[in-house]
Amino acid sequence: MRSPLPPLLYADTHASTDMLYFGRVEVHDPFIAFGARGKKITVQSALEFGRVKRTGDFDVVLPREVWQEKARTRYGKKAGIAEMIACLAKAYKVRGFRVADDFSASLYLKLRQLGIRLELAGGSLFPEREIKAPWEAEAVREGNRLCSVGYATAEKILRAARSKGRTLVWQGRPLTSELLRFHIEVAIKAQGGDARDTIVAGGDQACDPHERGTGPLRPNELIIIDIFPRVVKTGYYGDMTRTYLKGRASEAQQKLVATVLAAQRAAIRLVTAGIDGLDVHELVQHIFQEAGYETKRGKHGSVGFIHGTGHGLGLAVHDPGRISAISAVLKAGAVLTVEPGLYYPGLGGCRWEDVVQVTKGSAKMLSRHPYNWEIR
Amino acid sequence: MRSPLPPLLYADTHASTDMLYFGRVEVHDPFIAFGARGKKITVQSALEFGRVKRTGDFDVVLPREVWQEKARTRYGKKAGIAEMIACLAKAYKVRGFRVADDFSASLYLKLRQLGIRLELAGGSLFPEREIKAPWEAEAVREGNRLCSVGYATAEKILRAARSKGRTLVWQGRPLTSELLRFHIEVAIKAQGGDARDTIVAGGDQACDPHERGTGPLRPNELIIIDIFPRVVKTGYYGDMTRTYLKGRASEAQQKLVATVLAAQRAAIRLVTAGIDGLDVHELVQHIFQEAGYETKRGKHGSVGFIHGTGHGLGLAVHDPGRISAISAVLKAGAVLTVEPGLYYPGLGGCRWEDVVQVTKGSAKMLSRHPYNWEIR
Repeated sequence: MRSPLPPLLYADTHASTDMLYFGRVEVHDPFIAFGARGKKITVQSALEFGRVKRTGDFDVVLPREVWQEKARTRYGKKAGIAEMIACLAKAYKVRGFRVADDFSASLYLKLRQLGIRLELAGGSLFPEREIKAPWEAEAVREGNRLCSVGYATAEKILRAARSKGRTLVWQGRPLTSELLRFHIEVAIKAQGGDARDTIVAGGDQACDPHERGTGPLRPNELIIIDIFPRVVKTGYYGDMTRTYLKGRASEAQQKLVATVLAAQRAAIRLVTAGIDGLDVHELVQHIFQEAGYETKRGKHGSVGFIHGTGHGLGLAVHDPGRISAISAVLKAGAVLTVEPGLYYPGLGGCRWEDVVQVTKGSAKMLSRHPYNWEIR
Repeated sequence: MRSPLPPLLYADTHASTDMLYFGRVEVHDPFIAFGARGKKITVQSALEFGRVKRTGDFDVVLPREVWQEKARTRYGKKAGIAEMIACLAKAYKVRGFRVADDFSASLYLKLRQLGIRLELAGGSLFPEREIKAPWEAEAVREGNRLCSVGYATAEKILRAARSKGRTLVWQGRPLTSELLRFHIEVAIKAQGGDARDTIVAGGDQACDPHERGTGPLRPNELIIIDIFPRVVKTGYYGDMTRTYLKGRASEAQQKLVATVLAAQRAAIRLVTAGIDGLDVHELVQHIFQEAGYETKRGKHGSVGFIHGTGHGLGLAVHDPGRISAISAVLKAGAVLTVEPGLYYPGLGGCRWEDVVQVTKGSAKMLSRHPYNWEIR
C-alpha cells in the first residue's frame, strides 16, 4: 500500500481550523501550506514571515516574494497561487497532494490544469484531529473552566437580582440578556478567554436553540446560558450550557429540567469507545418519549428535542465527531459535548451541556459545574 | 447578453462573509443558500429555521428535513448536500449557478456529475460587496467609534502609569500588553463591540506587524495599538491603529512617527474614485524613500514598509478592495483602510491607520481619533 499523498492547504486560519491544526499559528490572510518528505512547509509574506517562523509548528517557512518571482519566471507575470504551488511541488518532488473536501474549487481546477495530481480527502483532511492528545484535552478542560467562571458570575448576579412584577432588577436597572452576557464575557476575558455570541436566552427566546437572547429577563422563566469561550493562549474551546430560573419554578418546569438532566446523565453513562453515537442519541430520544415529551414539527418551527446530542470540540466549537441521528462510532480519545435539550414555547427551553473524553471505560469528564438551577 | 447565473453558496457565516452578506444572519454550521427567480432562498434545519426566518434576509426559508427526504427519494438513502441542491435546482427551474472561487471542490465535482451547470465567479462572488451603502459606511463608522473608545481607555492608562526603571507600573503592577489589551477590549464590549486579537505591541515586538504583543510594556518605546472590533448588532468591523510612547521620544522616534503620519495624510489626500490604488501605495513608498527609510529583506525578516497601504473593510476585517502593490482602481463607495507603517528592530515600529470611503471628490473620513502619541 502506498502512503497517502501529503496534504495541501490554502486558507487563512480563521476560515480553516485544519490550517490552524496543521501549523499551530494564527494567520489572517490565506496562505499556502503543505507536507513534503515528512515535513510541514509554508509560504509566508514578509508581513507574517518572522512571527510564523518563531511561533508556528512549520519545519520550513519560505518567503512568498521569492516563490512568487520563481512562478512568474516559469509561468509569466500573471502567475498566481496555483503556479506558485506547481513550482513548490516540483522543487520538493511531490507526486501529488491530498486536499480537503472544501478546498477551493477554482484552485483545484487550476492545479489540475497545471498537471498537479490532487486527491480529495473525502471526509476530514486530518482524521486524526478527532482524537485529542492529553494536552489537547487539558486545553479543552481549561476552556470549560472559563465557562464555569462565567456561570459563577451569572449566578451571583441572578442571586442579587430582585423580582419586581414581570421584571428582574439588578443594581437599579432591568436585568437584560445583554447585561448578563456582558458580565459573563468580561469575567472570562479577565482569565484569558475570549467568549463571544454567548447565549443568554429566557422564556420563549430559548426555544430557538441558537437565539442569543435580547431584552429583559423575566422572573419564573427558564433561562438558557450557553458559553463557548476560546482559550486565547491555546486556541482551544470550552462549551457548556446551564439552565436557570430566578424565582419559583412551576411543576411543569421542574419536570422538564429534571428530565433533561436525567437524559444527559444516562447519555454520559453510555459513552464509551466503540459504541455508536446513534445509540446514545436514541437513548436520549427514548427517555424524552417515555417522559411524555414529543418532538414534532409545527407551523412556526419545531418543538421537543430538535438537535443532536453532541459534537466534537477542540480548535473549533464544532470540531469533527458527533453524537446524533447519523451513525458514527465513538473513538477513544475523542472529545465530545453531551447536550440534550427540550424546547416548548409557552413552557420554555432547557439544555444541559457538558464535555467528555471517550475512553475504553467510562467517559472522562472535561467540564465541571453544579446544576443548581433554581435561584430564589 | 444573458443575465448572470444566480449564486449558490454552501458554507457557515463564520467561514464565509459572502454568506453573511447574502443572508444577513449568522449561522454556525454550513448551509445551502441560492438565488432563483430574483429571490434569496435558503435551506435550514429545525435548529435554525425559526431564527433564520425571523431575522435573516432570505425571501424563502425551506426546511432541510423535507428536502433531505426529497433527495433520498430521488437519489437513494446516501443522498447528501449535492443531491439536495440538484433537487432544489430542478424544483426552482434554475439553469445553473455561479459559485465563489473558494466554493468546495468536492461539492463542485459532485454537482457537475449530477449535471448541474456551474460557473466560477473568477474573483468576488458579489463584486457589489466592495461598494458600501450609506448605512454600511455608518456601521463601519460605529466600529471605528468603538476603536476610539479603546484608544481613550489606553491613553488614560498610559497617562496614569509611572516609569520605574525599564518598567511601566500601573495600579501597583507592571503594565503588560495583556493588561492593556484587556481594558481596551472590555471598554469596547461595554459599548456593543467585540474586539479580539487586539495588537498591543511595544519595542521590537511591534516590528512584526501581526504580532499581538506579550509581557511588560517599556517606557520610551514605541507601542503600536491596532484595534479591529466587530459591531455585534450589525456584524460590521472598525479597524484603526495608533502609535504611542510613554516617556520621552528620541529624535529618531519622533522623525519615524512624523514621517509615517505625513505619508498617511498624503495617501488619504490622493484617494479618489478612479485613481489606481497602486499610485497611492507608490506615493507612500516614495515619501518613505525620500525621508531615508529603506525597505529591505534581512536575514531575520524584513524591515521598512513591509505591507500594503490599505484594504477593504466591512463584514470582514479584510473585505474586498485594496491599496497595494497590485494595480486596482479605487471605486466610489468603497471603504478602505489607509495604514502605512515603518518597522525597524532597535528603533521600533509605527503605524497610523484610519478608514475612508472613496468618493468622486476627496475621501470621506469614517474614523476619528487624535494622533497625540507622546504621553509624558
